[in-house]
Parts: sequence; C-alpha cells; structure tokens
Amino acid sequence: MARKQPPKALVFDVFGTCVDWHGSIIRDGRLLNQERGWDIDWEGLVNAWRAAYRPSMDRVRSREVPWTSLDELHLASLKELLPRFIGKTPKRAIKAEDLEYISKAWHRLKGWPDTVRGLKQLKSKFIIGTLSNGNVGLLTRMAKHAGLPWDVIFSSDWVHHYKPDPEMYLSPVNMLSLKPEEVMLVAAHKHDLDGAAKCGLKTAFIIRPLEYGKPHFDAGKYDSKFEKRFDYNAKSFIELADQLGC
Amino acid sequence: MARKQPPKALVFDVFGTCVDWHGSIIRDGRLLNQERGWDIDWEGLVNAWRAAYRPSMDRVRSREVPWTSLDELHLASLKELLPRFIGKTPKRAIKAEDLEYISKAWHRLKGWPDTVRGLKQLKSKFIIGTLSNGNVGLLTRMAKHAGLPWDVIFSSDWVHHYKPDPEMYLSPVNMLSLKPEEVMLVAAHKHDLDGAAKCGLKTAFIIRPLEYGKPHFDAGKYDSKFEKRFDYNAKSFIELADQLGC
Repeated sequence: MARKQPPKALVFDVFGTCVDWHGSIIRDGRLLNQERGWDIDWEGLVNAWRAAYRPSMDRVRSREVPWTSLDELHLASLKELLPRFIGKTPKRAIKAEDLEYISKAWHRLKGWPDTVRGLKQLKSKFIIGTLSNGNVGLLTRMAKHAGLPWDVIFSSDWVHHYKPDPEMYLSPVNMLSLKPEEVMLVAAHKHDLDGAAKCGLKTAFIIRPLEYGKPHFDAGKYDSKFEKRFDYNAKSFIELADQLGC
Repeated sequence: MARKQPPKALVFDVFGTCVDWHGSIIRDGRLLNQERGWDIDWEGLVNAWRAAYRPSMDRVRSREVPWTSLDELHLASLKELLPRFIGKTPKRAIKAEDLEYISKAWHRLKGWPDTVRGLKQLKSKFIIGTLSNGNVGLLTRMAKHAGLPWDVIFSSDWVHHYKPDPEMYLSPVNMLSLKPEEVMLVAAHKHDLDGAAKCGLKTAFIIRPLEYGKPHFDAGKYDSKFEKRFDYNAKSFIELADQLGC
C-alpha cells in the first residue's frame, strides 16, 4: 500500500479545477457589454476561446512556433475569434486596449464555492501550489484576485513546456527535492491526471460538473465519473481535505 | 518625479532582510546540542557558514562549477566547516542524516518582529514575492515555517543565476510583464540594491542592525545608513508600508 502513503505536496490544475473560467468570463464580459453598450455574445466567445486553447498550445509543444506564453496565446486567439461574436457592436468601438483588457479576463477568474476554504484546509498540512499552463503573471494576479493561498507557483513559463509534457509534471518534483510519489496532482481532467501518473505522481480527481456552464452529460464535455486508477476521487476540495485527514 | 511613481510589485531579498538567519540558526542548533548532548559552537559555525556563502556562489556564477542549488552549497560548506566547531562532540556522534537536518536549518528561519505584519500590509496593495538566491524548495518551506505570505517565489533556481547577475533582477520584470521601474527590490544590503538599480528596478533599503547578532557599528558588517540614491529608506517593513500608503 505504498501508493497510499500521503503525499507531501499537492499541485493543482487551475482552469476548471480551481476556478470557473466559463462563468467568470461570461459575467465579466456581460458587465462590459452593459457598461459600453456592446452586443458581444460572451457565451459563444468563451466556448470558442477555450476550444482554441489546446490547439494553440500544441503548436508551441511541437515547436512549430517558438515559446509563447498563455497570455500571448489568449490574446492571439481572441483577436482571431472576436469578430464572429460582436453582434451589432461597431467594430471600431473595440480598441486595442479593450482587447488587452478582455484577454486579461483570464486573470480575473473566480474560484468554485469550495476552492478557497478547501485550499486553506489542505495548506495546513501540505505544500500547495499551482501546476498550470498559465504563465506566472497570470497565475499570480489570479491568486490575488480570487484569494487562492498558494505556497508556490509552478507554471509553464518556468520550464517552457505545456502539460502534458513530462517536464511540467516533474518541475515540482525537482524543485521541491521530492520523489515523484510525494507529489500529487489535483485536477478535474483525466488526461491531465494520466499525464501526471505516467511521471510517477499521485493523482486526485475532482468532479467539476459546471466547468462548461451546465452539466453536459451527453456531450461528455466534462469528466463525470470517479476512477479506481486515481489515488483519490472527490466532489470538492473540502471532501479531498477530509480524505487526507486535514 | 517619474521615479516616485509607486511600483506594482515588491520583491524581497530574504536572508537578513526578511528573516534572522543568525539568531534562528543559533537557537535551532543550541536546542539540538541540548537534545543530543553535543558541544557544537553554533555562533562560530553560523558566522563561518554565512561567510562561505558568497565565495561558494561565485564559483557557480563564474561557471567554474555547474549549476548548484543553495541547499547543495549549504550542505557542502557545512561538511567542510563543521569539524572546526564541534568542540568535545565525538565526530561519530554526528551522522549523515544529522548533517542533512542541520543544513536544512536555513529552511527553518524566523522573520524579524515586523516581517509578517509588514508583508501582510504590503500585500494588500502590491504583488509581493521573494527575489532570493535560495532555491524554490528552501524558500517555499521557509515561508510555511515563518508564515511569510508570498504571492510568488522568484528564485535563483528558476533562472540558474545568483544575484547580483542581472538575470535575477530581470526575472520578476519579465515574468510579471512589467517595466523595470514597476518592480522594487526591498533589501538590507546596499550591493544588492545597487545591482537592482543597474537593471532599472526601484529600490527600498531596510536597516537590519541585528543581522549579525548585535550591531557591529565598527566592523561595518551590516549596512547602517540611509542613502538618497535609494527610492525608499526605512527601519522596518511597517515603516515602508506607511511610506507606500498601505
């Protein structure tokens, strides 16, 4: 039962696992519509924007393009996608600085209801950190905005790799001088956990049924079932903290 | 007066500026003497250990030896120095795991009386982070031990450079997508602040008269005078927070 030795550090996927990107960006955007008299379809935009996330990173992972931070990828995707979603908004009403501001909506995401309380509980016993494809500036500002009490920020930016590259999963192992099995990834996405497990990390799966706004059982957009292959399975960070004896 | 535009992020030298390495290691060691019946001269050892710090890093900076983390440098210096300070302790009483434990005394340092309260005040208005030659594991564990509420850990480990190499001072600038003058180094050591100023960062000098245990006015071991060339001069983090309107 060596597998069930508790880990020493917990590292977290952030987008979807810790914060509600879908709901936060729609809310942020609709407030902007109201303030500026714009007619942007934020729900359509955020879904298309998130769908561009993986392909844009894969171009960096394959070295088709040189290292590009997630802030830069977000801005580039936004510029490409926004025209399809502006509705009756006059194109010239949206300035370059507005695009900058909108692209930083990813810095202004809010946690799920259990996120801050659960992280504080887990922090009392473990080192807690991000392990995110977000860049350091994004993750740092998001933490201040959403009150996420990280001990340390592990980011794609430091290693110039995106998950699921093994360099990312091994970064907290090396930097904290721990064995792989002493580090556990907490994530709402099974492919991410499988990537971590391949590198020898422990895994904790958290179900986040509202990641895409409403439960999409049929579309299978979110991972909805516990799996025995993960070391822990929980419905919230608080449930995970209970399982870990915090 | 562009120089007096407030910064957006404050980064801190850690050893001596935020934490009392001299007093903490002596205390940690004397408790160990008592527990184990050892006779180690901790005051002599800690002074020699700290004196080995700069030359050991300089060998890495000059690329005479490959990248070596501060944890590893601390352990190597300890092995070299300890025999001179063991007094009547039998050499075989000190095992390899004891050396490991002693070398991690640098993870167990405590803040100055104003450190935690001052950092919390500063954190309410600014991004606060380390900018330290300590490695990520050391700085993360020290923060948990001493309650230092960092938003982000900037470390030699991430850039494989030690201060005063410019790569270190520019790391928070690049990673937070800020201009150099939007980042301020807070430090008790003038040579460190001068290194930051050369890279365009703002500077805040904090006097720490007890860094070497007692004020060494004659020995000039600690920097004891305010200087006009620094953007801010203060006697504590709380005084600095007041000056910055926190």
